[in-house]
Amino acid sequence: MKLATIADGGEKVLCVVDQEAGRLLKLGLASTTLEPGAAHPFLSMIDLLDGGDRALDTARLLVEKWPEVASQALSGAKLLSPLPVPRQIRDCLVFEQHLLNAMAQWEKMTGKPSSPISPAWYQRPTYYKGNIYSVVGPEEDVIWPPYSEQMDYELELACVVGKPSKDVSVEQAAANIFGYTIFNDFSSRDMQVVERPFGMGPMKSKDFDTGNVLGPWIVTADEIGDPQKLNMEVRVNGERRGGGNSADMHHRFDQILSFMSVSETVHPGTVVASGTVGTGCGLESGEFLRPMDVVELEIERIGVLRNRIIRP
Amino acid sequence: MKLATIADGGEKVLCVVDQEAGRLLKLGLASTTLEPGAAHPFLSMIDLLDGGDRALDTARLLVEKWPEVASQALSGAKLLSPLPVPRQIRDCLVFEQHLLNAMAQWEKMTGKPSSPISPAWYQRPTYYKGNIYSVVGPEEDVIWPPYSEQMDYELELACVVGKPSKDVSVEQAAANIFGYTIFNDFSSRDMQVVERPFGMGPMKSKDFDTGNVLGPWIVTADEIGDPQKLNMEVRVNGERRGGGNSADMHHRFDQILSFMSVSETVHPGTVVASGTVGTGCGLESGEFLRPMDVVELEIERIGVLRNRIIRP
Repeated sequence: MKLATIADGGEKVLCVVDQEAGRLLKLGLASTTLEPGAAHPFLSMIDLLDGGDRALDTARLLVEKWPEVASQALSGAKLLSPLPVPRQIRDCLVFEQHLLNAMAQWEKMTGKPSSPISPAWYQRPTYYKGNIYSVVGPEEDVIWPPYSEQMDYELELACVVGKPSKDVSVEQAAANIFGYTIFNDFSSRDMQVVERPFGMGPMKSKDFDTGNVLGPWIVTADEIGDPQKLNMEVRVNGERRGGGNSADMHHRFDQILSFMSVSETVHPGTVVASGTVGTGCGLESGEFLRPMDVVELEIERIGVLRNRIIRP
Repeated sequence: MKLATIADGGEKVLCVVDQEAGRLLKLGLASTTLEPGAAHPFLSMIDLLDGGDRALDTARLLVEKWPEVASQALSGAKLLSPLPVPRQIRDCLVFEQHLLNAMAQWEKMTGKPSSPISPAWYQRPTYYKGNIYSVVGPEEDVIWPPYSEQMDYELELACVVGKPSKDVSVEQAAANIFGYTIFNDFSSRDMQVVERPFGMGPMKSKDFDTGNVLGPWIVTADEIGDPQKLNMEVRVNGERRGGGNSADMHHRFDQILSFMSVSETVHPGTVVASGTVGTGCGLESGEFLRPMDVVELEIERIGVLRNRIIRP
């Protein structure tokens, strides 16, 4: 099942997408149409996630019945980030090729030699915590912050946690992942050069309104199959710039979630992203974005996430 | 005004504290008592913050009237974190003495020389984003995570943002700060040794349930006066371990909020913390916590934040 959030008369409405038919089903309206006073209100994606297996089962039943009164064309709909405000964003760095390429470029940009990859990187996932309030969705314009000259995209696969997870095994973590989406982590590379020596993680290099893009929808885990063998590609203005496969993640999503959950509750609605796939950002080749560039991230079994970057 | 959140019959209830009288006023109950059907529901601290100046003015009126039916003794109340789930936590690193002391200790612990403080550190505030779901309040036990041997406290002053802030001047930022509280950022130092080389900011060294403590209440900005001249002290089991004064922050709170707000909306309910005051953590002297230690952080004009750390 593909789950989206659309703008509908000033409201944010949770929908199921039938991409082949080119139709949407508004889950809340479908529910009240078929079963007035039904138990599950389907107000939002967070609401669905908090509802657990029962809410998801109910959503599947509504899709089977597909009441036309709650349906509309996909083509005319204004899609938003499927999760407008994730509970958390944790963005990892688990593609070795990206790290090697990026470190070589940081050397060029700063004139300072990078240390080799720490052995600990191979033993444990690494992550920073992203800004949950700067999230936009497909086709929304990304605003270039005035303090940057070198703006960049990042091609990332992300999972969405569906169950409260604390001290969960790798197997349980896999079962607790609700689905997958695409993440474009827009970044200011010149600001990262300033911030990297502090070792505190990204600050204004990634913290600016519209800088985090999710979408176009969340595909449930059952429909993804194996999340660790998905092709990924990035195009800028229609031209292929890079890509890879989630098979190259040095730590898998289930391992990452299990790791994060040690002594800590990871809540439903948390987005855990892979970090950039090798060749999945402009930094790696030294080619940055220009104003009005259109970035398309495509991941197998999910779809295409497209955004334009504008410089006011 | 001192604003607290208490546990009351399974609910989290917003209160004003009259510390001299040793009494609390439950704002929601006071409001419905004095003015049934009143405009402001005062459901929670976030609700008050989102209500802006008008909500705060209404709260002041309720305090003037102080309906006894909505009041109870402070001594019997179970205080929680005044903001149970902050919208964000941004924790800075703006005390030079702390940084110098910490770097000297990291050298000892790792055998690797630290770089000198980057000139950029003096020009701009640095911060990492903290875990908003691991927050507990005064007198709550902090749970020692099993992966750590070297647990530590951090004595920090924090401001709470009261108005949406984007591209605000330093003057406007000062006006947008709602109040101040105490922050104890419990940290695993041995895990930080593992994580520091990644440069992504703290991960499991600070991400564990109960690891972030706020309280005992939020003191409104008008009652604090100048937030940059508050004495700070930490005691462990009643014995003074360190302390300083917020005058030594190299970047002031208004400067920090103005900086963060560039191209980015900082929302009400965001906690912006100072980072550790010089001598305000055990790392600086190499003396870490032991199980059952009781840590008291005291900051002038706010109060005392006390927690015990237990090792299951």
